[in-house]
Amino acid sequence: MELIKNYVQQNKERFINELIDLLKIPSVSADSAYSQDVLNTADKVKEFLEKAGCDKVEICETPGYPIVYGEKIIDENLPTVLVYGHYDVQPADPIELWDSPPFEPVIKKTELHPDGAIFARGACDDKGQMFMHVKALELMMQTNTLPCNVKFMIEGEEEVGSASLAWFVAKNQQKLKNDVILISDTGMISNTQPSITTGLRGLSYVEVEVTGPNRDLHSGLYGGAVANPINILTNMIASLHDENNHITIPGFYDKVEELSQEERDEMGKRPFSLDDYKKALDIHDIHGEAGYTTNERNSIRPTLDVNGIWGGYTGEGAKTVIPSKAFAKISMRLVPNQDWEEITELFKKHFESIAPASVKVVVKPHHGGQGYVTPIDSIGYQAASKAYTDTFGVTPIPVRSGGSIPIVALFEKELQSKTIMMGFGLDSDAIHSPNEHYGIFNYLKGIETIPLFYKYFTEMSK
Amino acid sequence: MELIKNYVQQNKERFINELIDLLKIPSVSADSAYSQDVLNTADKVKEFLEKAGCDKVEICETPGYPIVYGEKIIDENLPTVLVYGHYDVQPADPIELWDSPPFEPVIKKTELHPDGAIFARGACDDKGQMFMHVKALELMMQTNTLPCNVKFMIEGEEEVGSASLAWFVAKNQQKLKNDVILISDTGMISNTQPSITTGLRGLSYVEVEVTGPNRDLHSGLYGGAVANPINILTNMIASLHDENNHITIPGFYDKVEELSQEERDEMGKRPFSLDDYKKALDIHDIHGEAGYTTNERNSIRPTLDVNGIWGGYTGEGAKTVIPSKAFAKISMRLVPNQDWEEITELFKKHFESIAPASVKVVVKPHHGGQGYVTPIDSIGYQAASKAYTDTFGVTPIPVRSGGSIPIVALFEKELQSKTIMMGFGLDSDAIHSPNEHYGIFNYLKGIETIPLFYKYFTEMSK
Repeated sequence: MELIKNYVQQNKERFINELIDLLKIPSVSADSAYSQDVLNTADKVKEFLEKAGCDKVEICETPGYPIVYGEKIIDENLPTVLVYGHYDVQPADPIELWDSPPFEPVIKKTELHPDGAIFARGACDDKGQMFMHVKALELMMQTNTLPCNVKFMIEGEEEVGSASLAWFVAKNQQKLKNDVILISDTGMISNTQPSITTGLRGLSYVEVEVTGPNRDLHSGLYGGAVANPINILTNMIASLHDENNHITIPGFYDKVEELSQEERDEMGKRPFSLDDYKKALDIHDIHGEAGYTTNERNSIRPTLDVNGIWGGYTGEGAKTVIPSKAFAKISMRLVPNQDWEEITELFKKHFESIAPASVKVVVKPHHGGQGYVTPIDSIGYQAASKAYTDTFGVTPIPVRSGGSIPIVALFEKELQSKTIMMGFGLDSDAIHSPNEHYGIFNYLKGIETIPLFYKYFTEMSK
Repeated sequence: MELIKNYVQQNKERFINELIDLLKIPSVSADSAYSQDVLNTADKVKEFLEKAGCDKVEICETPGYPIVYGEKIIDENLPTVLVYGHYDVQPADPIELWDSPPFEPVIKKTELHPDGAIFARGACDDKGQMFMHVKALELMMQTNTLPCNVKFMIEGEEEVGSASLAWFVAKNQQKLKNDVILISDTGMISNTQPSITTGLRGLSYVEVEVTGPNRDLHSGLYGGAVANPINILTNMIASLHDENNHITIPGFYDKVEELSQEERDEMGKRPFSLDDYKKALDIHDIHGEAGYTTNERNSIRPTLDVNGIWGGYTGEGAKTVIPSKAFAKISMRLVPNQDWEEITELFKKHFESIAPASVKVVVKPHHGGQGYVTPIDSIGYQAASKAYTDTFGVTPIPVRSGGSIPIVALFEKELQSKTIMMGFGLDSDAIHSPNEHYGIFNYLKGIETIPLFYKYFTEMSK
């Protein structure tokens, strides 16, 4: 413990600067304009893994962006931890809402981060959290405390659906063989109350296109007589929720896992202030499915959100036009037992069925993934819990996250091992938003906590 | 008549080339990026008016874009025709749907325009139709057939609400004194069945902004628990029409002029094929207010159309975000007796009232104008009717247009004179759309017909 603390203290400046170097590369996987930057980031990760002490680090080609693989096998008879993370990031827009350029990292103090936080796209999601594991390996190598084998699998398509990773994992089950998978791509309750994510929501992401007339029309000459695809699209989207904010797609809830009152009561114990929540978001009221609390709505219940909508004239000034087409990107967060491909099919069928004859509708499935729940009585969970308890002085609380890491369910299926989600970020770190940041405290705490997980996991595996 | 035909025949090449020069300048008033082009277009119009034979042509400064004024007074005792037109054009987007660049005019034959049509933004609306009047003056001057006085008032803000023109007209009632106002900014039924527009719809154009959380949020961590401004906006917009496509804004229909069955029957006689209409727009079905025909829906009934909508991530690929804001541009076409400012206020009040507490809503009134109806027993209408009958060999049909020229109602109020709308465009000319064009036949027919209007109007005024 002292050994770890001292190493982190002595090297923290370098740890921070190395992460900043990584954050400077705009590895936006959703936008092909950045493809070279994504590739450069993979090379950088390879370099860091080698420096940290990995053997045979490779850039593994895939149908999409490459996967960086590295390993340090010290003894075939010892347990093996597979670390997963991603080096790609979300698009930075809306750029104009960033207080500093998204790819020019700066350190600023905030109310929740008195020791300062690094502001940059990917600071928390996931470069910062992924890099903690690289530095933790370096620490264990330099202090001769690596107690088991470790494998790294860092991908570049997490923000666009991990299609290539699924392909890669299916083809490399032997290479990726492990006893537990470790991921830091989630959050914790607060810097004084750590938590471990035991559940993730699944995801179905689709894009819809509504076509009215075959060309943009003058809204005076045709207005009132021809279907306006934007008006139609708003009707169709509005009809996807009823007055209780239940989703109206037939069959959508059929397989939803209903939690027992005991489980819900347990969840309810999690410290939470609705007033602080509203204040932090500057909203007068919350909005969600009738019959569930805020923490239930964003974790154990499925959702349907429009992530983007566009059509017609969106420039400066006015244009009196009835556009030919209107579009929307729609994503559904799913809960355990809902199958994302089945839900995507249900959405497609329903959305096409509610289209009036006056328009043509196309639904393009985008990507998705299954939800996931991990038991808290596993060795992995117990090891993680002890590690947090050592470094924070508080026992972590198990929580269900509303987010999705589609690949986790796939890992269990393909590699037959459980995933432990040791997240160190905070909900307020603004991942996927302007001014994303990651606390220096959280970054260094992660580097301290991870080696203890290795230690306890190895001990408990004996 | 022969004199006119011969002059047009001898000069048509030049008439076409001069118009093409005017169309090459991208005078998009809605987008400040083109402001210098708008100003250059005004200078060009001044130059053409001078060449045509106007005295004291001036570029009249306004709070916005200048108004080009010119006059030819031959005898104070003769009637005076005030010609109104506009030199600004609609934005050209979506650019990618143009078959040729919008500001590089080309002449192509089409099914409806066997003699060829000029393809360019503004070809019909309104540079082409406005320029017919300039060439008609040249013709009357060169052939010594100008029978009365003429004044030109050509503005540069028609596509953005004519705010400066209203200001200019109110300040120059004496200067603009006239016996009839002549405008070519509307269409006719077909090249074999001319029509004169006797009614225009009013317009109220607003922009709405819906704000949810104070920043973009991760749709996994917050999805289901926080109001998504896009989902809310779609609900609010969808609620503006009921199942019969009646507009639900309280008081919206209170002052709507209801036509008698006789008037509706008269309208019904206008040649119209619903099949051709659907075929031309490639739609399986029409869509509009229950209880009215297509031609009624787009002329004598008010409408509410979304002209543009945007919010969230609209780029390539996927972004799982709940945006902070969503926006829409919404316009309402109004019919005679509806007051646009009152309707704008009703919309604002209603739209704000239906916003849930979970979002903040701002409604920004953009611009608007009153509807208009002109009697068909006036000297002006009769003169126009005789002129068309001479050049087309067919008596024109009076029709109500669904479009809006807000300034027309204001002319009547400020200048106490009626407006005659001699349109020569076709609905299929794609004004406000990609590939806008104007038939050579229509352009030259207009130049032939206008001098006959002057002749008959002067004779009938005696």
